[in-house]
Amino acid sequence: MRLTLLGTGDAAGVPVYGCDCSACKRARQDPAWRRRPCSALLETGAGRYLIDAGLTELAERFPLGSLDGIFLTHFHPDHVQGLFHWRWGQGPTLPVYCPRDSEGCADLYKHPGMLEFRPQRKLHPISLPGLTVTPVALIHSRPTLGYCFESGDARIAYLTDTHGLPKPTLVFLRDWRPQTLVLDTRSPPGDEPPRNHNDVGTTTTIHSQVAPQQTIMTHIGHQLDQWLLTGGNRYLADGITVGYDDTLIETGSID
Amino acid sequence: MRLTLLGTGDAAGVPVYGCDCSACKRARQDPAWRRRPCSALLETGAGRYLIDAGLTELAERFPLGSLDGIFLTHFHPDHVQGLFHWRWGQGPTLPVYCPRDSEGCADLYKHPGMLEFRPQRKLHPISLPGLTVTPVALIHSRPTLGYCFESGDARIAYLTDTHGLPKPTLVFLRDWRPQTLVLDTRSPPGDEPPRNHNDVGTTTTIHSQVAPQQTIMTHIGHQLDQWLLTGGNRYLADGITVGYDDTLIETGSID
Repeated sequence: MRLTLLGTGDAAGVPVYGCDCSACKRARQDPAWRRRPCSALLETGAGRYLIDAGLTELAERFPLGSLDGIFLTHFHPDHVQGLFHWRWGQGPTLPVYCPRDSEGCADLYKHPGMLEFRPQRKLHPISLPGLTVTPVALIHSRPTLGYCFESGDARIAYLTDTHGLPKPTLVFLRDWRPQTLVLDTRSPPGDEPPRNHNDVGTTTTIHSQVAPQQTIMTHIGHQLDQWLLTGGNRYLADGITVGYDDTLIETGSID
Repeated sequence: MRLTLLGTGDAAGVPVYGCDCSACKRARQDPAWRRRPCSALLETGAGRYLIDAGLTELAERFPLGSLDGIFLTHFHPDHVQGLFHWRWGQGPTLPVYCPRDSEGCADLYKHPGMLEFRPQRKLHPISLPGLTVTPVALIHSRPTLGYCFESGDARIAYLTDTHGLPKPTLVFLRDWRPQTLVLDTRSPPGDEPPRNHNDVGTTTTIHSQVAPQQTIMTHIGHQLDQWLLTGGNRYLADGITVGYDDTLIETGSID
């Protein structure tokens, strides 16, 4: 199973508009350091799925027929804004697996266009060709689901946006034993408890509780990048790494 | 006064995702024919203003300090989606002149970031350095304002999205006498009356009623482009022209 991180930024992204911190300056000078809306592409031998839709060039990037579905973690604009334009396309409907959220975002429910929203229940697996996906509850300011993808012997948990994990989610993950955990980590360790998102401290705790082979941080804000720029890397536990836009993650046997 | 049409497309844009009509094929082959979200840049000697914010690369296109404000016609996603990311910037607040709409779009009102929404009343002029702007009511599925820009001897009316014009708006325009009218024209003349947007027939009527020197069509859908491709141009009245992305319009004395 192959996961490509298409974007690894928080809602502001990196660089932040108008910000002159060292991380934002670097990203402005060299696009390789930019962080775009948090999203990913999951590929198995049998299908291609988009996880979150905050990138706004989805129509150009994914021609008709190149995707088998979309998994939405939640309906905040930075995770769905790429759908506003795309939904007016022509062709077969595209299934969009999402949390139960009565509001959705703006008029997406009212005018879904070619999208077919399919609300999911936590811990009720979705069966797709060569792939089983278990939605798990997360802790955020909107109804939010993480997704646990299993294909052959590969298991990847993609968990964002969240601050900490609900107990049933943690129990499931400990039993399920993912090799790879992709985890919301917006900020460096700080004096104040983070809201709505993990900081490096929370991520370290979850990494130790779930014990995957690797935890990859995503949904990263410019303050975390500054911290990493000034040597923060040395405080990351073994097995925790920093995700970047276009990071490619192979998990399990190549299928 | 200089107006640059940054985008001239309807909500689907051209090419429409998955569409193989002649207009969409042409736009896919040659980006010069693409139509992006309907928006414009207004420049006088004293200021630069964005009209609508549907383009999603606004942060890159307009560095801090390069704009004096934004005029929003209404809160449909294709006119505001570029604000979702941009609002999280740092620096002085940016005034956003907009219609009174209790909903806004998604969480823009709840989390305005660096944006300062300033609801306007129809026919109550806004005074800015070297520029007077009169909002006028339009007819659309959401509260929508057109804007009449006056600087020196130049007068430009920018009217989208609308189907027809309310009588008080028409009365104002006839008296105000714009040289340039930029007008919503989504579709070719059709058998069915258009909804929410003008077709070429409605635009021709408004052009004759307001009698500007030029009427430039915008918010154009792929069906209108198909009609133009097959000779529709010959049915356009004198003074009506087709807007394209990056069309530059100079009106009045160069200031």
